[in-house]
Order: sequence, then C-alpha cells, then structure tokens
Amino acid sequence: MIKISVSYQTPKDPEAFDKHYLGVHIPMCDKLPGIKRIEVTKYNGTLDGKAAPYYLQTDLVFDSQDAAMAAFGSDVGKEVVADVANLQGTTMITSVGDIVR
Amino acid sequence: MIKISVSYQTPKDPEAFDKHYLGVHIPMCDKLPGIKRIEVTKYNGTLDGKAAPYYLQTDLVFDSQDAAMAAFGSDVGKEVVADVANLQGTTMITSVGDIVR
Repeated sequence: MIKISVSYQTPKDPEAFDKHYLGVHIPMCDKLPGIKRIEVTKYNGTLDGKAAPYYLQTDLVFDSQDAAMAAFGSDVGKEVVADVANLQGTTMITSVGDIVR
Repeated sequence: MIKISVSYQTPKDPEAFDKHYLGVHIPMCDKLPGIKRIEVTKYNGTLDGKAAPYYLQTDLVFDSQDAAMAAFGSDVGKEVVADVANLQGTTMITSVGDIVR
C-alpha cells in the first residue's frame, strides 16, 4: 500500500479553506478511482507545546504507485488537481511513501 | 479520535535506524495502553520529484488526547519515551491533531 501525504501550511483564511476543503475538495477525492482510504488530520501543535509544522495533513491511500498515478490521470483526478487552484492562501507539499507497518 | 504524527528527518545511518525503529521501538509502541492504530510510512519523495520533507512518519491513533497522555504516562509509555534516545542521528517532530475526516 502506498500513501500520498498532502501537508498544508496554515491558510490565510482558515475558515474559508476548511469550508472548501472539507465540503468540496475531499468529497471530490472520495471519487478517485482506486482510492482505498482518505484521512484528514488537523494539527493543534506539537507534544512539547510548539506550533505544528503543518496546519492539516490528508493521507490518500492506494494499492500501489501505479494505481495512484492512474487515479490522478483519470477525469476525476484532473478535476481534483484543477480544484487545488481553489485552495488559495496556503502552501501544499505532497509526499509519496510506502506504508511499511 | 486523535493522532500523534511523529515525523523523522533522514537519520545518519538509515539502516541502523530502521532496524531499531521497526524491530524494537514500534513493537514497544504496540503495547501502549489504549493505542488504536499505528501506521509507519517511509517517504520516497514528493509528487513533483523533490525530496520529501520527512524520511518517515508514524501515526499513533488514540480515542482522545486524555487517552494519549495516559498512555505516555504509563510504564510502557515511559519505556517508549526512554527508547527515543536509541533513535540516534535523526530529528523528530511530534504533532498532535484531530482526525476530522
């Protein structure tokens, strides 16, 4: 299984971001072909009381890297990628990894 | 549900790190009272072909922040925290968040 972890810095307007992200963007991601799991975590801080490095992280789980690439190449995938433009006022980092345990 | 995401920079000796981490540290975490899920992801890079910001991330899921604090206050929790000293040559960031979706 592979995971795409999409990490966001604190957006300029967190309320507007959350509304579009959870109301529109993630429901769009739910339709990605081959998607196995989507989990969204909103960070409050670090265990030692500092600011967390990211505001929010979404994990998208697929069977394989090929399955993920096929998903993002599909019509739904293109819609998801195009919708990223609507997530204004934030920086996004997209890490790809293997679930090893 | 809450998640503690523990993110590690690339260790000085990745092979030694992996051996201790997956062979000793995570099996210790499996015994934390109240732990609901542990998932370890090893990142290969970003979707746009850059280095991933983290080498590895482990997500520890608990029912609540109180359950997590109780787990780390237990004997097993103290053992887990003490064992962090054995994860030499890396930097660790521990973010706490709510699973919102």
